[in-house]
Parts: sequence; C-alpha cells; structure tokens
Amino acid sequence: MAERIYRVNMTTLKTSCEDVPEKWKGLGGRGLTSAVVAQEVKPTCHPLGKNNKLIFAPGLLTGTACANSGRLSAGAKSPLTGTIKESNAGGSAAQSLARLGIRALILEGLPEKDTFYSLLVDKDGVTIREDDSLTGKGNYDVVESTIEKLGKKIAILTIGPVGEMCMAAANISVRDPDGNIRSLGRGGLGAVMGSKKIKYIAIDDTGGEGVKVLDSGKFKAAAKVFSKALVEHPVSGQGLRQYGTNVLVNVINECGGLPTRNFRYGRFEDAEKISGETMRDVIISRSGKPSHGCHAGCVIKCSQVYNDKDKNYLTSGFEYETIWGLGANCCVSDLDILAEADRIMDDIGIDSIEVADGIAVAMEAGVIPFGDGPGLLRLIREIGAGTPLGRIMGAGTAVVGKVYGRTRVPVVKDQGLSAYDPRSIKGIGVTYATSTMGADHTAGYTIATNALKVGGFVDPLKKDGQIELSRNLQISTAFIDTMGLCVFVAFPVLDNPAAFKAIVDMINAKGGGEIAEEDALEFGKQILRTEHEFNLAAGFTNKDDRLPEFFEDEPVQPHDAVWDFTGDEIDTFWNF
Amino acid sequence: MAERIYRVNMTTLKTSCEDVPEKWKGLGGRGLTSAVVAQEVKPTCHPLGKNNKLIFAPGLLTGTACANSGRLSAGAKSPLTGTIKESNAGGSAAQSLARLGIRALILEGLPEKDTFYSLLVDKDGVTIREDDSLTGKGNYDVVESTIEKLGKKIAILTIGPVGEMCMAAANISVRDPDGNIRSLGRGGLGAVMGSKKIKYIAIDDTGGEGVKVLDSGKFKAAAKVFSKALVEHPVSGQGLRQYGTNVLVNVINECGGLPTRNFRYGRFEDAEKISGETMRDVIISRSGKPSHGCHAGCVIKCSQVYNDKDKNYLTSGFEYETIWGLGANCCVSDLDILAEADRIMDDIGIDSIEVADGIAVAMEAGVIPFGDGPGLLRLIREIGAGTPLGRIMGAGTAVVGKVYGRTRVPVVKDQGLSAYDPRSIKGIGVTYATSTMGADHTAGYTIATNALKVGGFVDPLKKDGQIELSRNLQISTAFIDTMGLCVFVAFPVLDNPAAFKAIVDMINAKGGGEIAEEDALEFGKQILRTEHEFNLAAGFTNKDDRLPEFFEDEPVQPHDAVWDFTGDEIDTFWNF
Repeated sequence: MAERIYRVNMTTLKTSCEDVPEKWKGLGGRGLTSAVVAQEVKPTCHPLGKNNKLIFAPGLLTGTACANSGRLSAGAKSPLTGTIKESNAGGSAAQSLARLGIRALILEGLPEKDTFYSLLVDKDGVTIREDDSLTGKGNYDVVESTIEKLGKKIAILTIGPVGEMCMAAANISVRDPDGNIRSLGRGGLGAVMGSKKIKYIAIDDTGGEGVKVLDSGKFKAAAKVFSKALVEHPVSGQGLRQYGTNVLVNVINECGGLPTRNFRYGRFEDAEKISGETMRDVIISRSGKPSHGCHAGCVIKCSQVYNDKDKNYLTSGFEYETIWGLGANCCVSDLDILAEADRIMDDIGIDSIEVADGIAVAMEAGVIPFGDGPGLLRLIREIGAGTPLGRIMGAGTAVVGKVYGRTRVPVVKDQGLSAYDPRSIKGIGVTYATSTMGADHTAGYTIATNALKVGGFVDPLKKDGQIELSRNLQISTAFIDTMGLCVFVAFPVLDNPAAFKAIVDMINAKGGGEIAEEDALEFGKQILRTEHEFNLAAGFTNKDDRLPEFFEDEPVQPHDAVWDFTGDEIDTFWNF
Repeated sequence: MAERIYRVNMTTLKTSCEDVPEKWKGLGGRGLTSAVVAQEVKPTCHPLGKNNKLIFAPGLLTGTACANSGRLSAGAKSPLTGTIKESNAGGSAAQSLARLGIRALILEGLPEKDTFYSLLVDKDGVTIREDDSLTGKGNYDVVESTIEKLGKKIAILTIGPVGEMCMAAANISVRDPDGNIRSLGRGGLGAVMGSKKIKYIAIDDTGGEGVKVLDSGKFKAAAKVFSKALVEHPVSGQGLRQYGTNVLVNVINECGGLPTRNFRYGRFEDAEKISGETMRDVIISRSGKPSHGCHAGCVIKCSQVYNDKDKNYLTSGFEYETIWGLGANCCVSDLDILAEADRIMDDIGIDSIEVADGIAVAMEAGVIPFGDGPGLLRLIREIGAGTPLGRIMGAGTAVVGKVYGRTRVPVVKDQGLSAYDPRSIKGIGVTYATSTMGADHTAGYTIATNALKVGGFVDPLKKDGQIELSRNLQISTAFIDTMGLCVFVAFPVLDNPAAFKAIVDMINAKGGGEIAEEDALEFGKQILRTEHEFNLAAGFTNKDDRLPEFFEDEPVQPHDAVWDFTGDEIDTFWNF
C-alpha cells in the first residue's frame, strides 16, 4: 500500500485519505508541514479560525533504522507569532505514523459543537469521536488513562488545559517511550489543536505496513556510519549524554551569554547550583536516570529522568532552556523548584521558554520579585487554572510586555528569545532575527560554532561571519528537520563529512533516488524560501527581522557587548 | 515675539525653545504632530521607550475667532497600534497654548528616576517639577487640586492611573471650560505620557501674546460665513445640538449598522432605551445640560452634562461611541450604568471605545455575561486598580482577544472598531482598513454620506464609490485636523461650498498667504502620505490595511451583509 495523507475535517467531522501527491513525495517533517501550510493556508487568516490547518508529519527517515530519526513535526500558522510555524519533538508518535504509512495528518476546519473530540489513528484510518472524558485534564492524566484504555504501545499526542483554552503559548505533548512527556513546544500549536477541539490523538500502529527501504544493504551501511559519527563526536557522544542539554549552563555562563534577570546580565552568580554537573549528581543520588533517549533509536540520550527528594519520578525532558529561563533569567537557583515547574508546564501543556521569558518580564514589572521560586510556581499554576494573570502569562512574552507596559521584552516576531544573549553570542542573534518562526535558537544553532567550536570557530563577540554561519545552519537545519532527525546530529555533521554523506546515502537507499549532497542543501534553501514567502504574504517585512531595541541600547556584562548589526546587514541573510 | 516650539527633555530634565522652522510654518494640529513624529521619531522604536516623542499642537486656526477651532492634537508613535498616531480633543489647552504663542510642545526622552513630574507652561516657558503629589489620583482629582492651586483659568492636560501604568489604551484628559473632562482618546497616547512620567501639564496663558491675525477684517467676515454655515446645517446646527452625538443610536440602528453583541448583529433591541432622544429627556428631567460645548467658541454644542438620579453631576462628554460600545455592543441598556462607566473611564483615563470593544470580546469569552451592567462597572474599576484582569482590558481589544483566544476581535492594526458595522456601512469599513491610525471612524467619517445623506448619498450596502468617499473624507479630515477644527465642521463643508472657502479665507487672512482651495486638499494628501510613509518604515504593509476575517465570513443582519472588498480593491485607496 502506498504511503498516504489523511485529512480530518473538524467542520464536517469527516476524514479522507489521499495518495501523497507527486510534488510532496520527496518531503517529510518540516519540509512537508511547511509545504502544506504554504499551499493550503491563507497567509492572513486568523490562526485560531477555520482557515488554519494543523499538520503532523514524521520525517523522511522516520521509522527506519537511522539513529535519531524519530522526530515528529507539527506545522500551522502560529497563534503566537502569526508566521508559519514548525515545531518538532521526539516521542513515539512519529514512528507510529511512519509505520502506518502515514506521511501527514492534516487537521482542518472547526467544529460547531462546544465539546472536545479525540482521534484514533490506526491501520484502518482515522476515527473522530466526541470525547469530553478528558477535558480539563493534564497531559499526564491523558497519557495514563489512554494507555489504560488502549494499551501500553499506543502513541499519544495531547494538549493540556492551556491548549484547550487556546492560549498562544500552548504546546502539544507527545508520549515518550516510557510513558512520559515530550513537547512540540514553540509557537502555540497547542492552541491551534485546541481551537479545533481535539483533546488528544491516539495512534495505534498495530498491523502497520512499516517503512519501506528499497536498498536495505546500502541503508544499513550508511546508518552504521551515521550512528558511529554521532557516538564518537565529543558533544553528541559525550557532553550531551553525560550532562544532558543542561551541560550548557556552565559553558554559556562562561561565555557571558547566559541571560540573567530578564536579559540584564550575561552571567548568573548561582549558575553552579543549576548546572548540568550539579543536576547529574542530584539525579544519580536520587536514583533517577541521568541519560535517557526521547525516542526509540536515539543514541545521544540527552534527556534524563529527575526524581524528587523521595526518589519518586518528578519530571523528564528537563532541558537547559527551561532551567536557564526559570533559573538564571528569573534568578531562581533551586533545581527542585525548577523541576517542579517543568513538571507542571508539561502537564498543563505550555512552552517553557515562553513562560520563562514572560515570568522574567512580569518580575521586572513587579508582579513577583526576582528569585521568588514559590511565586513562580504559583504563576505557572495560574496559567493552568486560566485565571486572568494565568491568561496573561499563557499568551506569551510579548503580551506580558504589552500588558505591563515594559520595554525590555525579549521577543522577535512576538516569540521569546531563549538561553543565549545575542549581544555576547552574535550568531544566535542573527538566527533569532531572521528565523521564519520568530526567535528560535534551534532554527540555526550557531552556539555550536560560536561557543562549542564545532564546525570551526566564529568569534561570538564579533560580527564577522555570523550571517553566513546562521544562514548555513538554518539551511542545513531545515534539511535535518525534514528528515525527522534530531537537531543535535548537526554536531557530527558539522565536523565530519562522512556523517552528512551518510544521511544522503540513507535517503537514496530508502527511496531509490539519486540526490547529491548539494541537492540536500538546495532542498533546505527551498524550505526556507517557502516559509519566508508565506510570512511576506502574511504581512511580515524585513522590519520584523530585527531584535528589540534594548539590545542596541543596553550593553551587557561581562563583555560590555551591544547588538550592533544594522538592518541592512541583517537583510543580507536572505541573499541566497 | 514669534511663535515657537518648546521641547521638554525628560532624560536631562531640561527645556528648550526654538523658532518654528520654515518647513513647519504652515502646519498646526495633526499636520504638525505628524510632521514632527515622521521627522524625529525612529519608526521602529518602542513606543514606551526613550526614542518616542509626544507632541501637543493646537491647530492653525486655534485661538482665533473662528468657530469650533479649539481642538488640541497630540501625536506620537502609538503603544496600541505601533503606527503613527494623532488624537485630538476640545477643552481649553489648545487655546491657552495658542495664546502663549506656542505652536508645539514636544516631550522627549525618559527620566531615570522612578517618580512622576508635572510641567507648568506659562509666558516664561516650561518648568519641570518633580511632583508625586497626585500620583495614583484620578483625573477629576488632578483637575480639582490643580485649579485649587493655580486658579480657575488654568488649562490642564493629565493622565489617570491607567496612563501612569502605561496601559496601551490609556488616554490623555484635558480640562474643559467648566472644569470637567474631555479626552484625547485613541491610540494610547496617555501611556506615552506615562512612560515619560509626566502626570499633568498645567498651562497658564496669563500675559500670553495672543494669536496674531494679519487681516482681521477679512478674517471676521470669513469667520461669520463659517459660523453661519455651521449653525444653519441640519446636522451640526440641529441634530447634534439637540441630541448630541448620541442622536446616532436610532439612526445607525435603523441602518442595521449598530454593532450589537460583539459585532454579531446590526440592530439592538433595546436601542430606544439608550438613544439620544431618551437621554435628552433624562438629562432635562434631572436638570442637566442637554447641550454643551467642549471648548470656547463651539457653536455646535454636541456635548452635554449628565446628572445622576439625585441631580448631581455624574459625567459629561458622554458620547455616542461610548453609549454604543458599552450599550448595544455589550447588551447593557441602562443609561445610568453607562454614564457611571463613562465617568470612571474619564477619571482613570482610558479610551472608552477600546474598553467597550474589549469588554464585548471578554463577554464573548465568558469573563462576564452579555448584559451584565454591574460586571461591566467592576471590570472598568479593575482597569484603574491595575489588577491582572484590569491590565488585560487596559491593553486594548486586540490583547483581550489574544489573551482569551478569540477570533471575533474587531480591530484593525490592533485598534478597536467603533460604532458602525463595516458590513452594512461599507464606506466606514474602508476608513477602518486604510486609516493610518488603525480603525478610526473620525479619520474619514463616511457616515455623513452613507447614512446622513450629507454631501450626497453613497449607498452604504454597495461597494460602489466607497473608496473614493473614504479617500476624499480622509484627505479633507487631515486638513480639518490641522486647522484645529472639530471634525463636525465637515457636515456644512460637504454641503456648502461657502463653508470650505471660508476656512481657506481665514487661513489666508490670518497668515497673509494666498493658498487656494485646491492647495488645502493637496495639503491633506501630503499629511496622509507622510503618515503612511512612517507606517511603512515601521514595518506595516498593505496586509495591515484589512478588516478581520470574520467580517468576510459572517453575514450580519438585518441586511445579510458581508465585507466583500478584495485586498486589491482596498489598496487602490492609496492611488492619489
């Protein structure tokens, strides 16, 4: 049976199935979600209205034996930014969809009735069910009761109360292989799912046809090269595995690029207390898992399971950006509070970066003081409860700034910046400014080359070479996101030509094509152009490719660095 | 002594004085505020940051014997819309500034100290004083205690707590000749004043040089023609004088264009209860004033003084848009509640249209039910108190919509629409879409010709002629706003060529120039172009000149009308 696309029309409550059209045959993941949004969604539509669509797509290599290929992309017009959006995560949904031969699941329309629905995706297609049984419940509850009902092998995509309430920072959660939660975090895609009144999607791949690989010998050989490259690289094979993403607290603090106290400073005096090294010791002392993969087939294992003082499970997927955002940027240095916050955010279903940036802005506005850990937990609980204050925080950093009349509001295209100060690590500033998705470090992770000396070294404090660096990384990331690969494969790819060649070999072995390495980059460029054109048609201009004014006006310590790119310089990003 | 411009630098706390430069000599009011913003304010700056400026300018005819010429313009980059902004009102400040020979007062920079200041403007210049004596007080208190201190003749510009808190819908209040309050309502200019930490500006024109008129004979003759035209026109001379602006409730309800229940319907079943006719009876029965001018020299007198049941003063300047917005659009039909709401909004200092639109959206989101008068008062009081819910409502309709995840959010460029449904009165829809200030009916008041048959008749339900109508009115309004004239002079101007000629004659008589009537229109065009260019430089595009999607998708009763202009059609507005 050929691979196919399912459509779920929530207006008519009917589903349909179609073959993958020729033009989309070579696309998966972000390449496919962005192509569908660009072709089928009216750029000026209201993101929560009937004309938006939410698309889920596993990567082109998802479901194969390729290491770290189990990422699921979701795409739509973003309620947070108004731009095109793709967000991806691990978990088991991507692989289940791939095994069922499903290249994309497209959710369309809005139901008339004021009730929630659930979808069941299995070998026979998609079933829509009116289902208010889990309305108002947190994601952990949804996962638990769905497993109880449908069995332990089920993959689940779900929104928490924040998504139900259509808050612009709502995320979509995906069950990981252990039954815990990963997040398709950024851009408020959970609100799009909530607007379509879909509480959760259960995916049962029993009887699925699996993923076809035309030349399995060639594929296996390339997969082996690729896996080896991942394991042998010092960042993906050691640093990330040992300390998780949180290895970065000390690294970025040392750079002077760890945004602290709502981006006032570049170093946090209590960095040690929240560092990856400290966290590892805590996890081990409490019988947690310091190293853990977010999806089957991951060889990096940068995730972890964090237990509370009584050695009971508290949270997992407790990432650097969350720890930075609620830690350094809100001046809270108690890891247990941060872990509890992470747990609540996963449960209510909200992007932790957006929340962290928003809370720091609210702290600056005096809503609660900097360093107030219990206050921070209270604010996050209010988001889940949908109180007025919770609604403000759930609407994203830009809204918090507007509501409290602040000028130090770290957003681009209304999406909050993450854990790297663009003044002292200028490459990431170019990515924040130019990404088609609003400020998004993953779109072109220059930290690799600016701070970790992967793929060479570009001095983070100088302007030279940053635009080229960000451009090259954004192009290759668009390609990586299309394959369903984890963004961290970029580390070996940047340093080891064999790794990139192996990816291209796997694509060719899988589909029988003959694409060259240059084609792959052309492919990445085309995705960026498609996304950029959507944004222009939605009314964005080069004026939106700018960092907030305060980065130009306020030097940040310890390097006394300011953001000094001119608009014209930034605009050269699109010269490709 | 020559006319001059004063600058107040709030960063250095110094003031300076300069002659009016040649290029600005022929400008006043909106023409001057927009010219200063366009020339001196960075289009992409943060509206609450140090790079924004707030400019006050009386009109070119203000302070003369010309009827209805006492409007004061304020201009800045708007915290609500991000566009250029001009807002004008009556009161006594414009005439006091004009009598002092002050063509513009430009407020720049931001103070470092966390305290409020007051400004005293008199014949010797501008004095800045650290002054926290009235911080947190409402506008009525500010007016009362300033009069107590400085005497009854003082003119006052003030912000309430909403402006102090920099909420994006904060307005600037101006004392009227009776000591009551008028508002420079739209676009959040009160937040700009609040960001500069100026609580109030007292203007003492004692010893002022007065306004020079070169040919006073010619001026008087033209002023007489103009005044006669105003008094003799059925709208400005009778309808508005008898029933105030609220004469429109019945007229617009009859048109099917009275937005009701958050723009769901075009007629309100309780229209009669809140109509101008009913209101007049109530006012007379309580010994209020059914007819009252907002500034000295007004011959229309569309304002009124509304007393409570005990015949004590409750509010004044209780306009149609407020009564529509909190009445029909929120389904509250108790005039006393609406008057109390008006009083509170004047006191805390917030734009009543923005609040009304926001509350209707909040009602749709279930925050309080439609028709809940006491709830509505509570919400408005929360704005003044700065609670989280109050902050949401004070940030404007677009933020309310975003925070509550709604799609029926009646805004253009994030400014709330007013009391005319654009589906059933299409000309005003063109104005909402294309105005350089966000949705603003006063920018090109097509209701004159669409509903009141002034200046001919353009069928409100058909597309034909609406773009030309809106364009012509926006051009002439820009001119009128520059003269310091009340927008209602447009009624006689549209029907009576002598009225327009009289304005041009007055300008020539005053300054000794020889401008022709065509020059005046060219002048209006130039102002619009200047404002439009600022917006383009700020990142706005033609995609922002659009009404919200729901107006295209939802027909409104009783005419089953939808908004059916294409984007290309709207874009022809700028072909001049």
